[in-house]
Amino acid sequence: MQTTAAPVTALIEELAKLPGIGPKTAQRLTFFILRSPADQARRLAEAITRVKESIIQCSVCFNITEADPCPICANAERDHTLICVVEEPLDVLALEKTGVFKGVYHVLHGALSPVEGIGPRDLRIDELVARVRASAEAGEPVREIILATNPNYEGDYTAAYIAPLITLPNAKVTRLARGLPLGGDLEYADEGTLSRALEGRREM
Amino acid sequence: MQTTAAPVTALIEELAKLPGIGPKTAQRLTFFILRSPADQARRLAEAITRVKESIIQCSVCFNITEADPCPICANAERDHTLICVVEEPLDVLALEKTGVFKGVYHVLHGALSPVEGIGPRDLRIDELVARVRASAEAGEPVREIILATNPNYEGDYTAAYIAPLITLPNAKVTRLARGLPLGGDLEYADEGTLSRALEGRREM
Repeated sequence: MQTTAAPVTALIEELAKLPGIGPKTAQRLTFFILRSPADQARRLAEAITRVKESIIQCSVCFNITEADPCPICANAERDHTLICVVEEPLDVLALEKTGVFKGVYHVLHGALSPVEGIGPRDLRIDELVARVRASAEAGEPVREIILATNPNYEGDYTAAYIAPLITLPNAKVTRLARGLPLGGDLEYADEGTLSRALEGRREM
Repeated sequence: MQTTAAPVTALIEELAKLPGIGPKTAQRLTFFILRSPADQARRLAEAITRVKESIIQCSVCFNITEADPCPICANAERDHTLICVVEEPLDVLALEKTGVFKGVYHVLHGALSPVEGIGPRDLRIDELVARVRASAEAGEPVREIILATNPNYEGDYTAAYIAPLITLPNAKVTRLARGLPLGGDLEYADEGTLSRALEGRREM
């Protein structure tokens, strides 16, 4: 016999579909939502609905946005000849938080992964190549393309795949620096990070 | 300048209000929801709304339910003279999953905690005492009350507070057994658990 109310079981099941949320956490969250003020739960439900209804991809950089082109691509004060290529919209969020980067982005929506069967056609690579070519034709050629894919196997492979496709004569293709993270501890750094930090050492 | 779409930031903020979900997890969940099929997100939003709209407390046992009385209290096949007193609706869920308990419940909605300022008036203790008394007046007196509050300081204190309030002459007041958890390892058991397991040892 069903002794738990159906809406409760339904919410537990839906929450358990989210990544990193197991059945026990889903239960805890459900009972938290049950106990929280009605308008907090309403705001959460509405936020989920709104994000699905109003978010599209920018036709220029493929970042997620409400308006097309996105606020970054539409901003004339940003340097449109400097393109930072990232795997995911989350990476744009992280880079924007630094406040250091004044160029524009290109979101690939993933990284090449032969293991997972993700090939060049699954990513926005053709669009990047076309965008760079079009910038030259429009008389404002891209100066630099930062391949800011993740510092792991897939990210490196993706960067290595993209680099030779950028055939603009004067465009630099760069990759983010590798080294010790800020606040890191030499003693605990892995060998790969440490050898990259040695290779990339700079004069003080 | 705001470079992340407002609905995205809104959802990240709402998710980060949930217990155990920090800003990074909230970001990951938001982007997962963005990428998931529209009807999965819709089902999640609807489940949240429905759980708030349709869930009430049973007027007999104070468990959460869609109908009053709840399916357990309304079920004539359950033993209404055996009441299991628990802290939270989640505990009912856990006990029901065992399939062993055939009595009814009483949900206190918390435990006494002088530290957090939770006193007897904040819990459904008066309602429990009245319910037990009413059972005798109705000619079907409660036989046993299992005080299944948590095996920690607050739970023990709550059980010790409630026990003397049950003044029905023939009603037993019991507490769940303490001992080693199933699949547990003697070597790793804490002293408290081990001494309770010794005290409560049973003949084979």
